[in-house]
Amino acid sequence: MKMGKTGNNKFLKQFNETSLLELIRTNKQISKADLAQLTGLSPTACGIIVSNLLEKSYISEAGIGISTGGRRPNLYGLNPKSYFSIGVDIDVDYIRFILMDITGKVEYRDKIPSGFEQSVSKSIKLIEGKLNQIIQEYEIKEDRLLGVGVSIPGMVDNITHEIIFAPNLGWERVDLEHMMASIGSFPIYIDNEAMCSAICENWIGCCLDQKDFVCINMKSGIGSSIFAGGNLYRGCSGSAGEIGHIMVDHNGIKCACGNYGCLETLVSSKSIVEKAKRLIRQGLIADFTEDLDIDAITIDDIFSSASNGNEAARVILVEAAGYLGLAVANLINTINPSKIVLGKELVRFSEDVLENLKNIAFAKALKYPASRVEIITSEIGEDTSALGAAIIPLKKLFGYRL
Amino acid sequence: MKMGKTGNNKFLKQFNETSLLELIRTNKQISKADLAQLTGLSPTACGIIVSNLLEKSYISEAGIGISTGGRRPNLYGLNPKSYFSIGVDIDVDYIRFILMDITGKVEYRDKIPSGFEQSVSKSIKLIEGKLNQIIQEYEIKEDRLLGVGVSIPGMVDNITHEIIFAPNLGWERVDLEHMMASIGSFPIYIDNEAMCSAICENWIGCCLDQKDFVCINMKSGIGSSIFAGGNLYRGCSGSAGEIGHIMVDHNGIKCACGNYGCLETLVSSKSIVEKAKRLIRQGLIADFTEDLDIDAITIDDIFSSASNGNEAARVILVEAAGYLGLAVANLINTINPSKIVLGKELVRFSEDVLENLKNIAFAKALKYPASRVEIITSEIGEDTSALGAAIIPLKKLFGYRL
Repeated sequence: MKMGKTGNNKFLKQFNETSLLELIRTNKQISKADLAQLTGLSPTACGIIVSNLLEKSYISEAGIGISTGGRRPNLYGLNPKSYFSIGVDIDVDYIRFILMDITGKVEYRDKIPSGFEQSVSKSIKLIEGKLNQIIQEYEIKEDRLLGVGVSIPGMVDNITHEIIFAPNLGWERVDLEHMMASIGSFPIYIDNEAMCSAICENWIGCCLDQKDFVCINMKSGIGSSIFAGGNLYRGCSGSAGEIGHIMVDHNGIKCACGNYGCLETLVSSKSIVEKAKRLIRQGLIADFTEDLDIDAITIDDIFSSASNGNEAARVILVEAAGYLGLAVANLINTINPSKIVLGKELVRFSEDVLENLKNIAFAKALKYPASRVEIITSEIGEDTSALGAAIIPLKKLFGYRL
Repeated sequence: MKMGKTGNNKFLKQFNETSLLELIRTNKQISKADLAQLTGLSPTACGIIVSNLLEKSYISEAGIGISTGGRRPNLYGLNPKSYFSIGVDIDVDYIRFILMDITGKVEYRDKIPSGFEQSVSKSIKLIEGKLNQIIQEYEIKEDRLLGVGVSIPGMVDNITHEIIFAPNLGWERVDLEHMMASIGSFPIYIDNEAMCSAICENWIGCCLDQKDFVCINMKSGIGSSIFAGGNLYRGCSGSAGEIGHIMVDHNGIKCACGNYGCLETLVSSKSIVEKAKRLIRQGLIADFTEDLDIDAITIDDIFSSASNGNEAARVILVEAAGYLGLAVANLINTINPSKIVLGKELVRFSEDVLENLKNIAFAKALKYPASRVEIITSEIGEDTSALGAAIIPLKKLFGYRL
């Protein structure tokens, strides 16, 4: 709690209403008497707030409770399909879409190929078409769409919400929130892809009760996000978690950022593919691509060769995992998380590849924080950022800091 | 905001009272009408809470406000010298003491030489004597001492509050909170020294309005603390910010932790002194100690030689600062802080030594977060941890998460 001289007017009134709505969400079914008991507000005050929430359709009657003497009390719960939220994940290969209702249930999901280095305006056009289709198909009234969250593989300013730099899209200084405003009157929330994944893992994934965890996603680049004390941690200008340019190899190759030996030069789909091509051309490893053109090798080829028993492909992945292990050790010491969740392409790491990552991370980290952390792969897969983006408007409704 | 099924009973009632007390603190002088306006609570509800706070002596009448039509309103402010808090900083050279009143004013400060590798029981005896002396001298009644904060140069479990490991004191698995309970009936708060410094900088130092900042302290070891989103970030088990064992030199010497090239092997009073001794013995630098025994060199000798123009001493410090710059670059990328505050021995770095630190940090960090951070030295000096420890019971009173 922190309030300055310029604190919001009437914040306690709003806080009380949001607190009740959140208690109804987390309890699933609850009576007015229990709400009064939990909050310390008077039964009358609770009754007024519950009436307001019913009138706005956020909640509905959800059953009859057990009698504690008198009449059996009405129970209240979130009203399914009353309000909706949409998540959009703009990535280098696809734009993904999720429609979610107020209860967090996914009503619809789809992905459209986006093409590498797509223009901003082309992307907005694709998104506009899909959003209109979803809104019409599900007959979502204007005031029932809580908002659209948009996940971006790049840094987003946490005050202006401008996209600062999304290198793999080729986007720099893009005010997407403003540019998308013409699509509809709903609120738009632009967010970083790793941060969206953390929101997802915390709301519906493997970090439901975790207050302090880190999500690491590998895709074209590598990035992370930090949940600190129960909230997503953004840093002072929105770029917290940018571990891609931490130096892990003193003698490393030059990175696009100008420095040498950055994590991203060793652990990213792009750098892994480039390393494989380099080693094959130099004759340092056997050409495991067989009938493929070396130039056409993708990360999929490396993963499938490795899982088909190709040793050269496996070693490339083991080495990349080892360097990621060094970065993970730094995160364990600095952040002291309870979980580190590996997402996107990292879920394709086989057991023995992951083993190398964990061995190095635990050997290099301090014993105490290392003994408290679990390194796991996400169970949700590629949709974490789209799901997280859809959850943003819900979190806003339930009074969470974004 | 986050509440589970087992949320505290009546938390909103307590929250409302604490919120008003905090508004009175931050506004210094405020009327009941303005409190009602700011909070959205009814004037009657505000009146009842203000009466409670007056009765408990937390606040007192603090003047008469400007009329907005009717009678000029009474203003309320924190009641000076009504409640007190004590901070104790246990370090390798001294145990420091601070007495502070509810308004944050320092009433008393002192330090007692502690001797290196002091025993736990000897330290508790020293502390007990000093606490009793302060309590008697300032005639502090039992119910007016809000608590005693204790700063420790080591990792503290954030659930059990046990000291896990304080290598420079030689303490491991010490339940100091429990062992100090016999001294008095006041609450005791054990905390990490860098975390105490961050609390201090945020409450009365150079980070008053900063939500996201990092404090780095160099002493025998090196540690940091992270303020994230307006709160101290502890991690899942209390050891967040332990940057001393981040690897910054692949070819580095062996660290006490078993790894090689840890930051602490390059940047700490101990490692700087050891490096100086090694270089002098190997004849690699001139002996700048002159009439001193090489074995007796201290960090003070190195700082004073450097400031007296000795080039060898200066270069040792410049190199240490450079390695710290690498760690600072990692923190800028990962944490995206608005300020990095260098404390304890680091405030003795001269301008050109600091320059090397900043140059490397800004060259190695990503441009965007680097453009948003300021690297500064603490203006408070060696008392930050003792002051921060004294502020802990105050923060608890004003409803802050510890």
